[in-house]
Amino acid sequence: MHSFKERLKFILELDKMKKVERRTLITDSSRRENDAEHSFHIAVMAASMIDLAAQKEKIDVNRVVKMLVVHDLIEIYAGDTFAYDVDANVGKAEREKESADKLYSMLPQEIGTELRALWEEFDAMETPDARYAAALDRLQPFIHNMQTNYHTWYEGNVSKEQVLKRVGIVKTEIPSAWEYVENSINQAIKDGAIRE
Amino acid sequence: MHSFKERLKFILELDKMKKVERRTLITDSSRRENDAEHSFHIAVMAASMIDLAAQKEKIDVNRVVKMLVVHDLIEIYAGDTFAYDVDANVGKAEREKESADKLYSMLPQEIGTELRALWEEFDAMETPDARYAAALDRLQPFIHNMQTNYHTWYEGNVSKEQVLKRVGIVKTEIPSAWEYVENSINQAIKDGAIRE
Repeated sequence: MHSFKERLKFILELDKMKKVERRTLITDSSRRENDAEHSFHIAVMAASMIDLAAQKEKIDVNRVVKMLVVHDLIEIYAGDTFAYDVDANVGKAEREKESADKLYSMLPQEIGTELRALWEEFDAMETPDARYAAALDRLQPFIHNMQTNYHTWYEGNVSKEQVLKRVGIVKTEIPSAWEYVENSINQAIKDGAIRE
Repeated sequence: MHSFKERLKFILELDKMKKVERRTLITDSSRRENDAEHSFHIAVMAASMIDLAAQKEKIDVNRVVKMLVVHDLIEIYAGDTFAYDVDANVGKAEREKESADKLYSMLPQEIGTELRALWEEFDAMETPDARYAAALDRLQPFIHNMQTNYHTWYEGNVSKEQVLKRVGIVKTEIPSAWEYVENSINQAIKDGAIRE
């Protein structure tokens, strides 16, 4: 567990994140984004938008960056679950827990426990760090969606209510982004990309 | 500069990291890795291997994770420079400096200055944080290379001396990984993948 040879197994598992495809397209619409790219993107967003965070005084931004690079690791085995696919979300928590058991047991206990706790904190969306992290996790695919002719919303056949439920956390955590989000949603309704 | 609308330009530039191709293949050899994926991978490695770092008492691991997610951003405009391509490395520093000027001027001064300084610190490889970060940046493609039948070394027609110069920092910063590195190099010489 404490040797490099053991750790190498974990390092090689991380490479699988580059094959976990998301519904989101990259902004030139040429292909789907993968989990490694998404995690990278929001981690840099966390570092570069901290001045816009409502709770910035309470946020440990470096810790959020770490939280974001590990927040989707459980998808190595559980796969990405499309946010707007109701059926697929059944059993998601259990699948992800099993994945976490498998993944984090490859690491020395202290490190495995820490990284797993970061994911659990992210998932609970309660602490200032986790709320800022979650807002970024919702905002980034929203932006990609707007850049790719509402690709994800058309795929999901979503309603305004579903979108607002998903991105609502942006309003409280990154308030200055909310005007963009609202305008985008209104435009999408006009364009028939989401149901009123 | 301080509005979300301005920040959106920077966020969209980050997406280009997913199109900056490296020489390294992902481990199933199906395609090249991109900068976003590489940055993600080594950021998680930093978080999950800190117990193996020689200078762990002096390292701020969360800061290293942040350093690693931004360390290649200058390649958005400068492109990836293959480590073993001598000609391509001419003018690299100047190209990257110009790229940094363009990129970081999109951010509020305080944040832009901080993120640029992290890249410069990484590049200088002097502080404990930067040395650990640099060792991971060298070790990860080394591992990929070993998993993909020496793909990068064949492309670069490299010598043992070049490889040792490139990965030597692993020996001092992550000593327990060195046996794997040495054994791999010896095997590669036997296999004719690098010149003695």
